Amino acid sequence: MRRIAGGVTAAKGFRAAGFEAGIKYRGRMDMAMIVSDVPCAAAGTFTSNRFQAAPVIWDRQVIEGGAAAQAVVINAGIANAATGEPGLALCRKSAELTGAALGLPASLVLLGSTGVIGPQLPMDRIAAGITGLAERLSDSREAGEAASRAIMTTDTVNKEAAVEFDLPAADGDGTVTVRLGGMSKGSGMIHPNMCTMLAYLTTDCAICRPLLQKALRDVVRDTFNMISVDGDTSTNDSLIVLAGGRAGNRPILEEDESYALFREALEAVCRELAIKMAGDGEGATHLIEMRVIHADTKENARILARAVVSSSLVKAMVYGRDANCGRILCALGYAGPAFDPAAIGLWLVGPEENLCFYQEGRVLAFDEEKAAALMAEKEVRFLCDLKAGDAEATAWGCDLTYDYVKINGDYRS
Amino acid sequence: MRRIAGGVTAAKGFRAAGFEAGIKYRGRMDMAMIVSDVPCAAAGTFTSNRFQAAPVIWDRQVIEGGAAAQAVVINAGIANAATGEPGLALCRKSAELTGAALGLPASLVLLGSTGVIGPQLPMDRIAAGITGLAERLSDSREAGEAASRAIMTTDTVNKEAAVEFDLPAADGDGTVTVRLGGMSKGSGMIHPNMCTMLAYLTTDCAICRPLLQKALRDVVRDTFNMISVDGDTSTNDSLIVLAGGRAGNRPILEEDESYALFREALEAVCRELAIKMAGDGEGATHLIEMRVIHADTKENARILARAVVSSSLVKAMVYGRDANCGRILCALGYAGPAFDPAAIGLWLVGPEENLCFYQEGRVLAFDEEKAAALMAEKEVRFLCDLKAGDAEATAWGCDLTYDYVKINGDYRS
Repeated sequence: MRRIAGGVTAAKGFRAAGFEAGIKYRGRMDMAMIVSDVPCAAAGTFTSNRFQAAPVIWDRQVIEGGAAAQAVVINAGIANAATGEPGLALCRKSAELTGAALGLPASLVLLGSTGVIGPQLPMDRIAAGITGLAERLSDSREAGEAASRAIMTTDTVNKEAAVEFDLPAADGDGTVTVRLGGMSKGSGMIHPNMCTMLAYLTTDCAICRPLLQKALRDVVRDTFNMISVDGDTSTNDSLIVLAGGRAGNRPILEEDESYALFREALEAVCRELAIKMAGDGEGATHLIEMRVIHADTKENARILARAVVSSSLVKAMVYGRDANCGRILCALGYAGPAFDPAAIGLWLVGPEENLCFYQEGRVLAFDEEKAAALMAEKEVRFLCDLKAGDAEATAWGCDLTYDYVKINGDYRS
Repeated sequence: MRRIAGGVTAAKGFRAAGFEAGIKYRGRMDMAMIVSDVPCAAAGTFTSNRFQAAPVIWDRQVIEGGAAAQAVVINAGIANAATGEPGLALCRKSAELTGAALGLPASLVLLGSTGVIGPQLPMDRIAAGITGLAERLSDSREAGEAASRAIMTTDTVNKEAAVEFDLPAADGDGTVTVRLGGMSKGSGMIHPNMCTMLAYLTTDCAICRPLLQKALRDVVRDTFNMISVDGDTSTNDSLIVLAGGRAGNRPILEEDESYALFREALEAVCRELAIKMAGDGEGATHLIEMRVIHADTKENARILARAVVSSSLVKAMVYGRDANCGRILCALGYAGPAFDPAAIGLWLVGPEENLCFYQEGRVLAFDEEKAAALMAEKEVRFLCDLKAGDAEATAWGCDLTYDYVKINGDYRS
């Protein structure tokens, strides 16, 4: 598997576009479109919030019904959530207009929205946006990048990732190169529960829908579900992958070696996008990584790692570059899973050596200067050894800053 | 029941003191003592954090062992948590010194600490503090206030509450006046789980220990467990009540009318102290109240109300005085309990009329000017009607501000 440049247009057979539709923001793109040349196997995971935004309800009908999908239209600025029947009618209308513009049935169109909860979308601007997007579609790397920029809200950077890997060719003659790329957005209202943001992946791999869904469900647990910005699980979270099959590989129909390679590629792209989201959390100046090793179960390792990166006190301490390790212990202690406080160890991870904060039941004296230097890095890493078993997990978050408060104290205006 | 001025010295038979021991802070009191003239029935609830501070371990041994208690010594500045065997040895030594100073066995002495996790307490200063406190003990209102000031950390105001009520006299001749008062501290690392702060209550009511513990366990669920500042459950949380019996009431030995009156008084004092803590959350400029009515169960009402006051996005929005009601819906939606999004209603509560944010499945247009005026109040109140049953609950929190980040980005220095 090799990392390559690009995003949703990295895989063969996908075009994309971004467009300035003027839905809420001014002077920037706020609508994106992804279109496949052929109908795709589609898989997705969605928010567990009991308020499901209208586009989430729409997409679930398409994907959980087992139908194929061929296009996605996404807008930023307004979430189309808590909008009742009018919001759903707007989804139907958007899918119909997209279908008409692309010569597809509306049932092959997926929708995504992100932004303020409550207001209705301006249908006239959405309609003009769909027309504008359809005219601008391209399979260029720039078009993929434009789409990734158009779905941003309070994000400060666009987020793309792509890989390629080799699979046996469909005709049995050697191997073919398969590509998988994606884009995501997400900065606030991000917390591990299902997928917790908008992310769209495309691949030219030939793979059946059940295995595509299985692979997605598996990798989301250790990637998108392991990041937290603020503990709030949005009403709009959607992670969707479209597999068009244009690479020419022997279709993946069982959990064989090819499936394992595909799953690995999917995990790599999801992890990269997830970490990029955590590091670009609203107002963030640091990425926080918490790795928990030697846990009794994988799930307990996940819960403990997430508790630390979700703690407001840990997040504020990283912002202040203060190695106040008691806050990490405190978060581990209230997370839920049982462990022996006298047995565990806690370290601040350095490039060469790790700094031990806690061992044998007590906080140790550590080199404050070395700690300060490590806490000043853009990426701050902690390691906890539970000394209880073989499971491990890693979670990612970001620091809590003045700017998070500023951004969220006045988001609507 | 009547509200009265005062705190831990409001009840007959209790003396208190505050003292500047120089443990961590300079130029302010940082140690407190409460002493009863007679051994008291003692009840308590403690943190559920797996890291239990040394004084929590000590107090649990005393209280859960069913022994009486007669004195409490508390220090601010250092938490004596994650301090291992040396931290426990320090507790034993402190109890012994207190016992010697007061002429009591060490086993009747309770201890409390709040502050930074990790460092060991300076035993020489603790020892001098115990001597100084014992010399200053008084049953005056000022002495109770001094104790309440001495346990503050990042608190901006001291927190006291007291009530009095009448119970049948022990000699069968009419009634006597019973008093119950308390003090608490807590500003950061506060989240509903057990008691979540330091709080000490004293009463001259004669009541047996099992009923004292039962009443405390009952009222904590709707008072201290319903507040949140930052979602972090501390290693040191302790809520302790001492009942000395000096009021001369007929001892409460069963769940009769007198027990109901006592429980009501206990709940009133706990609620007042809890709301004072929520409103004095680190950096807070607003108190947030979330009331959930017509829930199917009490526990679901509690979970939903707490989710809203715990949401970083809701907290930041209240700071920004922005009536972005989608964030409240979002928090209700991810809280866990099932409800029908199309059935519920959400209001911003005003002194005369309430402003409806959401009804019949969608966000309504509301008077932004009226909303802005209500959001500018020191206390901001929301009401959610689930239209599902008869249960209700109220939670209290505070807004998320620049100052929270400032205070917690640099707490140790």
